[in-house]
Amino acid sequence: AMLKSQRVLPAPLRRVLEQLPPTTHPMDVLRTGCSTLGCLEPEGTGHPPLAIACRLMAALPSILLYWHAFTTSLMRIDTSGTEETTAGHFLNMLLDKKPDPLHQHALDASLTLYAEHLFNPSTFAARTIASTQADFYSAITGAIGALRGPLHGGANTAAIALVERYASPDEAEAGVLATLGTQERVPGFGHPLYQAADPRSVAIKGWAAKLAAGSDDGARLMAVAERIEAVMQRERKVWPNVDFYSAIVYRLCGIPAPMFTPVFAFARIAGWSAHLMEQRTGNRVFWPASTYVGPEARPTPTLDQR
Amino acid sequence: AMLKSQRVLPAPLRRVLEQLPPTTHPMDVLRTGCSTLGCLEPEGTGHPPLAIACRLMAALPSILLYWHAFTTSLMRIDTSGTEETTAGHFLNMLLDKKPDPLHQHALDASLTLYAEHLFNPSTFAARTIASTQADFYSAITGAIGALRGPLHGGANTAAIALVERYASPDEAEAGVLATLGTQERVPGFGHPLYQAADPRSVAIKGWAAKLAAGSDDGARLMAVAERIEAVMQRERKVWPNVDFYSAIVYRLCGIPAPMFTPVFAFARIAGWSAHLMEQRTGNRVFWPASTYVGPEARPTPTLDQR
Repeated sequence: AMLKSQRVLPAPLRRVLEQLPPTTHPMDVLRTGCSTLGCLEPEGTGHPPLAIACRLMAALPSILLYWHAFTTSLMRIDTSGTEETTAGHFLNMLLDKKPDPLHQHALDASLTLYAEHLFNPSTFAARTIASTQADFYSAITGAIGALRGPLHGGANTAAIALVERYASPDEAEAGVLATLGTQERVPGFGHPLYQAADPRSVAIKGWAAKLAAGSDDGARLMAVAERIEAVMQRERKVWPNVDFYSAIVYRLCGIPAPMFTPVFAFARIAGWSAHLMEQRTGNRVFWPASTYVGPEARPTPTLDQR
Repeated sequence: AMLKSQRVLPAPLRRVLEQLPPTTHPMDVLRTGCSTLGCLEPEGTGHPPLAIACRLMAALPSILLYWHAFTTSLMRIDTSGTEETTAGHFLNMLLDKKPDPLHQHALDASLTLYAEHLFNPSTFAARTIASTQADFYSAITGAIGALRGPLHGGANTAAIALVERYASPDEAEAGVLATLGTQERVPGFGHPLYQAADPRSVAIKGWAAKLAAGSDDGARLMAVAERIEAVMQRERKVWPNVDFYSAIVYRLCGIPAPMFTPVFAFARIAGWSAHLMEQRTGNRVFWPASTYVGPEARPTPTLDQR
């Protein structure tokens, strides 16, 4: 019940979201919505860190879908919802029907897998910002911005574009081999932390397979995805990361591709928040040193010598 | 002329600012304004990085003062202005009169001193965000959040509160000695980079002295500030950093204390932008490793054992 009330957006935030064009990058909507909520419900008495973390977990899906419904259909939707879970609530609001239980469970699994993952650019940005004793929202707003990049959370949106490009496994194999001959990246593969398979990928691939079994479209996507996986292992010895099969799950749940990275953000609020609370325990400000590697000092003529 | 047109805020951004309460932290206004501009004028064709940097330099003072005038006086001000410099334009808009040339020059000097300063938490946050190939606005929005903290840009607001607390140098000496006996920080002193005097402090102190000479109020503030400086050198061997006498300059220019850190942000857009452009040349994503230092692995009873 508490979570449901936290899904409701304050009126000034709704009016802010109504100002953002329908062509806005959905991560820019989350970034702006989070920053605005920090103006309306600032950290302090009445809004301690843990309450802000819960509020953002509840409010971020509302921010995305309120903006989406208003800017695409001029509808001002009620974001309080009747579903208990974030996965069920999000699918219900997005598709405007009772969510398929299998879809809901698969999305739930994906949110759990995405919730936290040690250090990474967005978590590190959040900790850097928090290290100056800035407020909680400033740190999360920065983290959302970092997650937006294609080298981080943006990979799941890029992965579905790759898989959807090909009508068959053979076409995918030829296409990926051609891509490997260029400087272009193949999204959804490899992770700085893992030499072998990303354990999260194994888990989410199981859900992707379950969802794919239900339709021809799903079977085709899965066959293409598995062939790409095989080619990447054979040719580059790299494994899919969590983003690759998460993208298949989201696509089969009916989530539009531009919303894939926002779904990652809904989940990661948990991890970011835990890191922020840890950072504030015995905080030291992040003030990195740098080494100058440019040209040596050159003579500077005074103005009258020029 | 180009800069003047860039000072004008698009209508949706003005409407967003009108939603932010008058009690909002001014850095939260800048953070939200910058993020919103990223939705309205996203990076890409028509908005390349250098153009965005110039736009933000011109627009940030407008964002602050449009919000301030609207939420405190219900006035929708014209932010295009007639003054050529950022310093002159800001003072003109803020005080609604032709700026005193001495004030304008002092503020100009402060903006120059604040424009860039190697690595630091806000620059590092901006680079971390940019390293994922996120857009320019995401990086600057994160940097504004980091600058907000009292251990970074927030120090100039804290410094003026310290100086204004004391009616005389003797009172200041007693007060600072008492503070040194507690765990409380004395703001505006010391810098991770400098063992001795911050060279920027020497420069801005000269301007503070010039401005202070014009009034009894200024003379008192300067006498208090110099006594605090002497006590800190004698007792802790620490020197004032750039924030300490910048705060005196801003106070004597008539800038309200909550706007001190925003003024720092207006200046630092230049440095952040230069770092972002450098980061994008041969970028590598920031993915730090971490070492676990918690308890050893403990036995986990399975569900049926509990």
